[in-house]
Amino acid sequence: MVRWEPGARERLQAAAMDLYISRGFEKTTAADIAQAVGLTERTFFRHFADKREVLFSGQELLEQALLDGVAAAAPHASPLEMVEFALSAAAALFPAERRDHSRRRQTIISGNPALQERELLKLAGLASAVAAALRSRGVPDAMATLAAESGMTVFGVAFRKWIAEGEERSFLDIEREVLGELVAMAVGAA
Amino acid sequence: MVRWEPGARERLQAAAMDLYISRGFEKTTAADIAQAVGLTERTFFRHFADKREVLFSGQELLEQALLDGVAAAAPHASPLEMVEFALSAAAALFPAERRDHSRRRQTIISGNPALQERELLKLAGLASAVAAALRSRGVPDAMATLAAESGMTVFGVAFRKWIAEGEERSFLDIEREVLGELVAMAVGAA
Repeated sequence: MVRWEPGARERLQAAAMDLYISRGFEKTTAADIAQAVGLTERTFFRHFADKREVLFSGQELLEQALLDGVAAAAPHASPLEMVEFALSAAAALFPAERRDHSRRRQTIISGNPALQERELLKLAGLASAVAAALRSRGVPDAMATLAAESGMTVFGVAFRKWIAEGEERSFLDIEREVLGELVAMAVGAA
Repeated sequence: MVRWEPGARERLQAAAMDLYISRGFEKTTAADIAQAVGLTERTFFRHFADKREVLFSGQELLEQALLDGVAAAAPHASPLEMVEFALSAAAALFPAERRDHSRRRQTIISGNPALQERELLKLAGLASAVAAALRSRGVPDAMATLAAESGMTVFGVAFRKWIAEGEERSFLDIEREVLGELVAMAVGAA
């Protein structure tokens, strides 16, 4: 029997982040998180496969946004234009009011090598997904990998800039700046 | 007491690769590998931390080659020129006579998700090492990450091309082609 607890997922997530910051990720259990919001451990596991997933569940939305972006590019868009569309779509998931959450999440991940590995693997998975989407739009194999991985490189650099202390520009503005730097770097070699 | 067995490391590595291919990585133990060349399990562990390390021990040489390459670039080289030097130095580790070994290694890794993850993490570690080397040569933080990750993207795509069936061009030629594709992709957007 699955009972419906209004906002349970969001409350669990907020409590988890607080505990990961205050007590440390390793020392926090699923039961601690559930208890902090008056829910059972079983309820926690209805929403998240494990305590790591609290930190990574948003990456499905990110993948969908990236793929929607690729799909939205014009029929004869170049591979890099398709990637630009993907990056723009992804930027919509990082509005200004999300920045503090992202900063706290990054603090938690930076403090734990296993979480860092998981983050790297998830990002590599996103690059593969984008590359597959580019291939399905007719981009040749190697070029699809180049464009997708370059796109995720830009995403990663932009993300780190966006969460830097004192940074106030939008994710999209920063992404455009970083993509511009990538292009300038390459043009210098042309 | 460490006894010296002439060529033990190479013999263990060759036997391990044969067993990983014929029997499967999961079903091969360190003892099996040692036994195949008439050595003890203890000798195996003097040379390799575990049976996975047989597949990844070469990555220290690769990292050193990449860093040597960055160091060898001219004083006022651009970030991408430094990366080109790094890629050229790395190519020297992949002569034609290494191609079959690399193909077999890739077959083993492709068949095992945990090995694939380890490979991805090792490559990410190489990108971080190259980025740090670029920073130490005065490249600004974000640009160092962009250039280093682009370089490792080129390396990865070049590697997959180099081990493709029927491919006979040198690693260096393929790297140059792929770097040219990356530059062309970006120049198209400038």
